[in-house]
Amino acid sequence: MELEFLRWLREAIPPSPRIPLGIGDDAALLTETTGKQTVVTTDMLMDGVDFRLIDHLPVHLGRKALAVNLSDLAAMGARPVAAFVSFALPSLGRDEQELPRKLIEGLLPLAAEFECPIAGGDTNSWLGPLVISITVIGEVDVGQAWLRSGARPGDGILVTGAFGGSIRGRHLTFTPRVREALQLQSMGVEVHAAIDVSDGLSLDLSRICDASGCGARLDLSTIPIHPDTEPKRLSPDGSLTVYLTDKSPLEAALSDGEDFELILAVPPAVAAELLRTQPLGVPLTQIGWFTAERGLTQQLPDGSVLPLAPRGYEH
Amino acid sequence: MELEFLRWLREAIPPSPRIPLGIGDDAALLTETTGKQTVVTTDMLMDGVDFRLIDHLPVHLGRKALAVNLSDLAAMGARPVAAFVSFALPSLGRDEQELPRKLIEGLLPLAAEFECPIAGGDTNSWLGPLVISITVIGEVDVGQAWLRSGARPGDGILVTGAFGGSIRGRHLTFTPRVREALQLQSMGVEVHAAIDVSDGLSLDLSRICDASGCGARLDLSTIPIHPDTEPKRLSPDGSLTVYLTDKSPLEAALSDGEDFELILAVPPAVAAELLRTQPLGVPLTQIGWFTAERGLTQQLPDGSVLPLAPRGYEH
Repeated sequence: MELEFLRWLREAIPPSPRIPLGIGDDAALLTETTGKQTVVTTDMLMDGVDFRLIDHLPVHLGRKALAVNLSDLAAMGARPVAAFVSFALPSLGRDEQELPRKLIEGLLPLAAEFECPIAGGDTNSWLGPLVISITVIGEVDVGQAWLRSGARPGDGILVTGAFGGSIRGRHLTFTPRVREALQLQSMGVEVHAAIDVSDGLSLDLSRICDASGCGARLDLSTIPIHPDTEPKRLSPDGSLTVYLTDKSPLEAALSDGEDFELILAVPPAVAAELLRTQPLGVPLTQIGWFTAERGLTQQLPDGSVLPLAPRGYEH
Repeated sequence: MELEFLRWLREAIPPSPRIPLGIGDDAALLTETTGKQTVVTTDMLMDGVDFRLIDHLPVHLGRKALAVNLSDLAAMGARPVAAFVSFALPSLGRDEQELPRKLIEGLLPLAAEFECPIAGGDTNSWLGPLVISITVIGEVDVGQAWLRSGARPGDGILVTGAFGGSIRGRHLTFTPRVREALQLQSMGVEVHAAIDVSDGLSLDLSRICDASGCGARLDLSTIPIHPDTEPKRLSPDGSLTVYLTDKSPLEAALSDGEDFELILAVPPAVAAELLRTQPLGVPLTQIGWFTAERGLTQQLPDGSVLPLAPRGYEH
């Protein structure tokens, strides 16, 4: 199976000047650019844990497996260079190449959009469930990567996009914020820290705080809540309003996860300028600021402050 | 589980000047070296396909999963820089951290020996069998990587070490030929092509031939056959001689695979010099030469030539 699939795959991948040697040798060769650091991220998705092959289309799964890695690169402010895609493929009792081709077909448009061609991988068959393991290599100017650990008290907390309810479909179809990250980099915007929201807005924010040795105070009235969190009217006459979960829209925005938006720590003046000019195609919103005191807090309209427990998907 | 395991892992990994940012952020950062190309290889090993958790010790499996990747780097003549290690871990019904720690403990000595620290990965638990997916990043001087495609008619076929019978244990304990590859590179030895023997000496040789558009002629009397291919005397008094397989030692050497020795294509004068000086710690042997005619052939003592079918593990 592997040989024929690899022939198909090699033909499906456009040539790249950054990849003098791609699929087919013992390893791939990538051209380095002077003044850059290599950025590497890897994610493994497994049937029954991260998705259900019986509920999700392979084209969507292939796309998502690449997209989550690209989102990690965006959170570093890094440019994608190449992807390495490995599969453990279950026997579906029909054409063996059908599943890996669908997975690849799902991710190829995203790879093309963000100039991140497949440069290698490992395709295997077995009797277990589907496993997709993708490693993405990127690059960033030396010293310009956005770490989780650089947030400073007083920095504004900016977020791209809106949060909550991704389970209704966005968790498969989201666009990783690579373009926005590269735009901020090319504008020379001073970003002290960043993370992408995979496990939950409040939980991932708390990870920046933990890495930076600071806290964060949120004004919950400013959280951009995605329409996907809205209660669905399920009855034909519209009389029955049902929440799909027991979470309120705000709770969903704070804890659902898989939004794959960026949280950015930027100095107050920079935050103000970004909010005014809105230079990205996607809205930027300030939801609070980093504090010297550890822990997450929420500031109420009357100015009082209460603790806020970070919530989301704990591994 | 993941958090506590990651804490343990971060403490188990020595700091590296090449890895300014390792485990714990959205991605890792690697320092690039001027004049180098990045080399990337990845291998996925699965319980029931590449190993059996019921027959093999996790420390051995962790070591092997890294070693096969390092062997791929050696086959490129490349220096290891960093490893990215992902697991899908089955529940063994006991301490959840026991299996990943044993896997890591198995590979740490090899990572230290070849200066290839773990810089990231993805640790997951599920109800499926164990999957280990490792990506190794290396580097090589620009234009100095050994491809499969550079062999020329007349080049000598040199091999490191000896072949066959790796199933008796060497497939788990082999030392990837990283040191030997780097020594040849530092000596400036002209290597036209290389591959590591994972699937079988004759099969992997045929892959160099296919990639290079040439053939190869072997003098079978020169193949270095490993003692592991020798018949085992199984009865206490030594009277009963049993082959563990139905292969002769020569057949085993040509087709067993998992020797993880190197096949090198070098110009005749270079081959002669290497054979005379034997500069590596491991023996170098010439087993034939590349030919303009395609296909593998064997040359008999009387000078006649017969076809030789490449054999080994076909994926």
